[in-house]
Amino acid sequence: MALRYLTAGESHGPVLVGILDGLPAGIPLAERDLVPRMKRRMGGYGRGKRMTFEADRPQIVGGTWKGETTGAPLAVLIENRSNRQGRTTVRKTVPRPGHADLAGMLKYGFSDANPVIERASARETAMRVALGAAACRLLELAGARLAGHVIELGGISAAPCSEGAGHGTHDGSATSAARAADRLERARDASPVASADPAASKAIMARIDEAVARGETLGGRVELIVWGLPPGLGSYVQHDRRLDARLAAALAAIPSVKEVELGDALAAGRSSGHEAHDVIARAGDGLGRASNRAGGLEGGVTNGQPLVARLTLKPISTLRRPLPSVDLDTGRAVEGRYVRSDVTVVPAATVIAEAVAGIVLADALLEKFGADTLPELLAALASYRGRLPRWPKGRNR
Amino acid sequence: MALRYLTAGESHGPVLVGILDGLPAGIPLAERDLVPRMKRRMGGYGRGKRMTFEADRPQIVGGTWKGETTGAPLAVLIENRSNRQGRTTVRKTVPRPGHADLAGMLKYGFSDANPVIERASARETAMRVALGAAACRLLELAGARLAGHVIELGGISAAPCSEGAGHGTHDGSATSAARAADRLERARDASPVASADPAASKAIMARIDEAVARGETLGGRVELIVWGLPPGLGSYVQHDRRLDARLAAALAAIPSVKEVELGDALAAGRSSGHEAHDVIARAGDGLGRASNRAGGLEGGVTNGQPLVARLTLKPISTLRRPLPSVDLDTGRAVEGRYVRSDVTVVPAATVIAEAVAGIVLADALLEKFGADTLPELLAALASYRGRLPRWPKGRNR
Amino acid sequence: MALRYLTAGESHGPVLVGILDGLPAGIPLAERDLVPRMKRRMGGYGRGKRMTFEADRPQIVGGTWKGETTGAPLAVLIENRSNRQGRTTVRKTVPRPGHADLAGMLKYGFSDANPVIERASARETAMRVALGAAACRLLELAGARLAGHVIELGGISAAPCSEGAGHGTHDGSATSAARAADRLERARDASPVASADPAASKAIMARIDEAVARGETLGGRVELIVWGLPPGLGSYVQHDRRLDARLAAALAAIPSVKEVELGDALAAGRSSGHEAHDVIARAGDGLGRASNRAGGLEGGVTNGQPLVARLTLKPISTLRRPLPSVDLDTGRAVEGRYVRSDVTVVPAATVIAEAVAGIVLADALLEKFGADTLPELLAALASYRGRLPRWPKGRNR
Amino acid sequence: MALRYLTAGESHGPVLVGILDGLPAGIPLAERDLVPRMKRRMGGYGRGKRMTFEADRPQIVGGTWKGETTGAPLAVLIENRSNRQGRTTVRKTVPRPGHADLAGMLKYGFSDANPVIERASARETAMRVALGAAACRLLELAGARLAGHVIELGGISAAPCSEGAGHGTHDGSATSAARAADRLERARDASPVASADPAASKAIMARIDEAVARGETLGGRVELIVWGLPPGLGSYVQHDRRLDARLAAALAAIPSVKEVELGDALAAGRSSGHEAHDVIARAGDGLGRASNRAGGLEGGVTNGQPLVARLTLKPISTLRRPLPSVDLDTGRAVEGRYVRSDVTVVPAATVIAEAVAGIVLADALLEKFGADTLPELLAALASYRGRLPRWPKGRNR
Repeated sequence: MALRYLTAGESHGPVLVGILDGLPAGIPLAERDLVPRMKRRMGGYGRGKRMTFEADRPQIVGGTWKGETTGAPLAVLIENRSNRQGRTTVRKTVPRPGHADLAGMLKYGFSDANPVIERASARETAMRVALGAAACRLLELAGARLAGHVIELGGISAAPCSEGAGHGTHDGSATSAARAADRLERARDASPVASADPAASKAIMARIDEAVARGETLGGRVELIVWGLPPGLGSYVQHDRRLDARLAAALAAIPSVKEVELGDALAAGRSSGHEAHDVIARAGDGLGRASNRAGGLEGGVTNGQPLVARLTLKPISTLRRPLPSVDLDTGRAVEGRYVRSDVTVVPAATVIAEAVAGIVLADALLEKFGADTLPELLAALASYRGRLPRWPKGRNR
Repeated sequence: MALRYLTAGESHGPVLVGILDGLPAGIPLAERDLVPRMKRRMGGYGRGKRMTFEADRPQIVGGTWKGETTGAPLAVLIENRSNRQGRTTVRKTVPRPGHADLAGMLKYGFSDANPVIERASARETAMRVALGAAACRLLELAGARLAGHVIELGGISAAPCSEGAGHGTHDGSATSAARAADRLERARDASPVASADPAASKAIMARIDEAVARGETLGGRVELIVWGLPPGLGSYVQHDRRLDARLAAALAAIPSVKEVELGDALAAGRSSGHEAHDVIARAGDGLGRASNRAGGLEGGVTNGQPLVARLTLKPISTLRRPLPSVDLDTGRAVEGRYVRSDVTVVPAATVIAEAVAGIVLADALLEKFGADTLPELLAALASYRGRLPRWPKGRNR
Repeated sequence: MALRYLTAGESHGPVLVGILDGLPAGIPLAERDLVPRMKRRMGGYGRGKRMTFEADRPQIVGGTWKGETTGAPLAVLIENRSNRQGRTTVRKTVPRPGHADLAGMLKYGFSDANPVIERASARETAMRVALGAAACRLLELAGARLAGHVIELGGISAAPCSEGAGHGTHDGSATSAARAADRLERARDASPVASADPAASKAIMARIDEAVARGETLGGRVELIVWGLPPGLGSYVQHDRRLDARLAAALAAIPSVKEVELGDALAAGRSSGHEAHDVIARAGDGLGRASNRAGGLEGGVTNGQPLVARLTLKPISTLRRPLPSVDLDTGRAVEGRYVRSDVTVVPAATVIAEAVAGIVLADALLEKFGADTLPELLAALASYRGRLPRWPKGRNR
Repeated sequence: MALRYLTAGESHGPVLVGILDGLPAGIPLAERDLVPRMKRRMGGYGRGKRMTFEADRPQIVGGTWKGETTGAPLAVLIENRSNRQGRTTVRKTVPRPGHADLAGMLKYGFSDANPVIERASARETAMRVALGAAACRLLELAGARLAGHVIELGGISAAPCSEGAGHGTHDGSATSAARAADRLERARDASPVASADPAASKAIMARIDEAVARGETLGGRVELIVWGLPPGLGSYVQHDRRLDARLAAALAAIPSVKEVELGDALAAGRSSGHEAHDVIARAGDGLGRASNRAGGLEGGVTNGQPLVARLTLKPISTLRRPLPSVDLDTGRAVEGRYVRSDVTVVPAATVIAEAVAGIVLADALLEKFGADTLPELLAALASYRGRLPRWPKGRNR
């Protein structure tokens, strides 16, 4: 593994801390490159008011020099604002169903759920987004673009993104990647629920209003598409080098995510072999595919098509009308305690998915093309692309 | 990570090689403990004839002494039989859609797909099953049982396994785990397609016959249930310590698996928060749940309920009526080349899933309870179980 | 690996950042537990004035709750004081011999040595000491004590520490460990050069004064002793599980350390087998040794004797009378540029060695005895100690 | 980490098993490339007769295709010959001083030392040598050469190898690397004790004869030199990326090795700063050094000079006149049991050091220059070398 990261800090602690180790030198990177994704994480129709006064400001405190990465580990701090500073000292003895509370208390021997709540909180994903934004920056400079969008929320489906269906050649240019990503992002960012489908957006907002009224929370699905990746990232040679496994791990590690699909897996599982694969064909002077059911991954390796992953989030577990539980001090059944809550975090998951997948993909890129400086990486990548099959052979770039 | 493994060897090489490093000393383990799962991997209605004369015989060549593990790495060899010994030397220049062929050739610079085919072959899973069987043995000795079964094949669904729905206490006894597992296994093993639902089995066999006639292949879904795990395996404290992420990686690394679901995620994604979680309640002198939608994992940690994971396999890519592709030597479009093939590997995936999940879970168990000898592990586990909440408090075991 | 850590931040950046992931819950830990070792790192006769106004104050910003660890990653920040805040922007184009400057500039493609200097600076060891102090705290609670002291400086040798020679039983009690450590620490802390030998201390100070006058720097050797470790930490079963290898890596990763010796290796290398090993004998009702030439490690595993490691530091490379080098902008030979400098960092290395060895040993302890809570760890350790051989057998504790 | 390996198998088991995962595709590699180093491991004046009839024959059973690596894991088997096949079943209850016996029995709860002896045996290094030979092959193709030789044995010192003193430029050519290595190897291979100094060889042989007569065993020191490495391998940015730490770990993990020195550390520790570093100077149109006290590593990174490491081996612990110990069954003191034994393994350590250092260095090379195919690696390396500083600037290659 070329790239690795650790995060630390609690939900009501003074600061979140993150270290991303293994970025090459020479990537132009400043705090402003992290901010847009961090803002997207906090926004979205259906978030509580809490989010409005919590505009996270990432501070890069290590790993850059004069606006470029240096090869040294990237260090990011995110201060928790005033409303978070006073950690509660009231013991919490009633574990909330759906949270880590009970499992964490038993595991670590706590009679108070607070230390579990503090670290298991989805607040921690703010740091994954900050670090992941740096990885995404590297991918962009290498010609790849990631975009997540909501494809289902509260049971309402949005139209799928045709941009992930794959019509390009296996070494799709950075230009076409950017164009496809821009189109999806524009549509998504126009929606308060991060869905690229305007009609679905409207219906989803109505569903959220209804959920607010009923004290419910809502789950849904996110689709992540990555354009412009070269073929050959990841490997089939060993179980833990497969890119599908590494992506599945990163995505399943997002709080509330309980399902991960690569390509059109659910449909493929029900189809016959002839409908489930992507015929290899000539496209211009190179190779192409007419479909992208594999989601850009064959044998755990990118095949040059857009990478498509989908994930399902359960509804968040913190409910206005709380679920029953048991007081671990007394053994007595009690109603779950009320905690201010969002209705849904599915829109936020679009950007968390980009971030964590970005780290996995940047890691795979660095593995394949060397890891010390951006120019060397780009040269090795260009040289590799130049050797991909082209006909007539003499015309190879 | 306490437990790690590497496999090596090619599909038509002399032997598959596997090393599992990190097992504690004192586990009774012999080749006969590996054989049953290895046989299950090769069986199942819908496999080609190849499987019949290839009865794999694992040889344990390291890591045991007088029938017990020693703490030294477990080494297993599986010889490839006569029909595999003669590696073809015919160059293969037409990558098959759905396989690693194209991605692998581009990645490693091959003009011949053979080295890709040899290693990316699902034959390699024989070794994962052998090593995983050793991990499953450890889990069984710790009171846990794993069972996979087919819940969908060729579009035909089987009834879900109610044994995973969760009615026990959070520290479900080894006895009840064994009972539940035995019931599911009996039903599954009576079915030629590894489904515990007799009616569905019949329909699935008919579907397979149809597929044979049409030269099709079929995908499907597998459900894996693990009973008897203690709460507290895995952790929410760091992205890569979450058990959901580690399981998702292991399961997604199985060839043909393109989707992983933990608990009732797909249903939960469409439900409201009140229907998606598992109320915590008193059950006897301890805690229990009336449902198990979370599939035994909250916050990436086991919660004492049965662990439930489901996975989707695409139809295998090797088709009697092959898919079109391109000859990379010439750039000319050609029909895919015919290769003798199974119709479906979904039944085999039930045991591969057990094996790879077994390694992940044994690893998590060793992390939590220390790793040098089985008796120490069992003592630490018993002591932990004894400290789990019981009321009235004086009655704690 | 149970325990892992990353550090980040630059010498003149705003802050150093460290994350230690994998500590069990329940360790009493506050900033005051980190301070003493951090102060020792900065002190010592022969440091420049810089050190005096730079009293580092570690801030624990994650991983504790009400004064105890929670299982969540420990996060520590160390602010760089005012004199460090203004990062120089003057390009440095002359790499200094003995530093990472040249290698780093070539590796990362810099024409300016600043980014190398900033991260390769020994300032980073402040964070290793802070994180390591937490690991040492865990070891102390488990009955082990670490102490480093100077055994040679500027060519002047100090008397060896007889406390590491090993006279105890293989499961030496926490009490005797504490006694031995206290004795060595008292003697060492009375010396301005961290040597337990008063006569040598005096001679070393004179040697330092001389070096100051001449503009020289001085290297030397440090001995690290760890009392009270149980036998059985580390393993011979796989190359990278050996404790000798893991300790050697941690110690050799300290800046300026270029040699690591375990036990009396240099003497043993010249002796015959009969003089190089430690006869196993009865001691009271258990086992003991009359010597400790192996330094407490046989086969890469602790054997219950005091662990003894020694390391050699080269003289620091930053000299008042600088060494010649080449300006990489012009290719012209130049005198090395002057930078304010310490004369020796050997005394500081006593505490850095404790810190990094502490992390390795705490990791090995957690591997062997489970990792979630301190009470569970201590119970497993006590139970293990109770099973160590005692005669007559009935008298086993 | 790009490259990783596991070994398995016992001293008297049927076979040793090794997997090296992460080699790029395209390295010409056959069993004959492994044999020379494996033979050197078994030879040497002072080995018992055992070695003569045990000519190890490595079998590559995975990872190559038509004589080249494929990116798939390299799998090697080494059969144990007839004299090893019959595992003893006699319990061994008297742990031998200096061996892992006691520590291993306590750790893994054995009352019989056999399982410890079987795995802790230095026989396992045969596999490290086989796998390491493959890594050395990669290094050679990249222009680097490794050679180990004995510099001290039984207290008799050999003249140091002036070839490691460093006179080349920082990007020393493959040609000069080969020339230097060839010279050292020729001298060493002419010596029955693997020393390049003929006079010392003679004295050492006499010392060995004497030891045989007295039933003694002998330790000593080995020097490993690596020529032709590019500058920039390893990194100072994180503790565990430093090449000095990784080399120290690999070398200290060799059985009997208890000390590791990088460059002239022991001398440097006693010198002043002006004598301990290597002045950077112009050499031809590039950079050079007049000395190589740092042993080619500054800040944990290669600096283009020959890499020099030295290691000390204690005398082997198995003695004809055995050391006293205690019978763990009875608690009674007994004489250690006699086991047929070599007098010294120091000559064998020259090749084990090459092998394990070879894996570390190949790993660092792959990290820096990308890892999928040999041609890509060589192109990236050549391009990097071409960018190293040259004056006048226009003359850059």
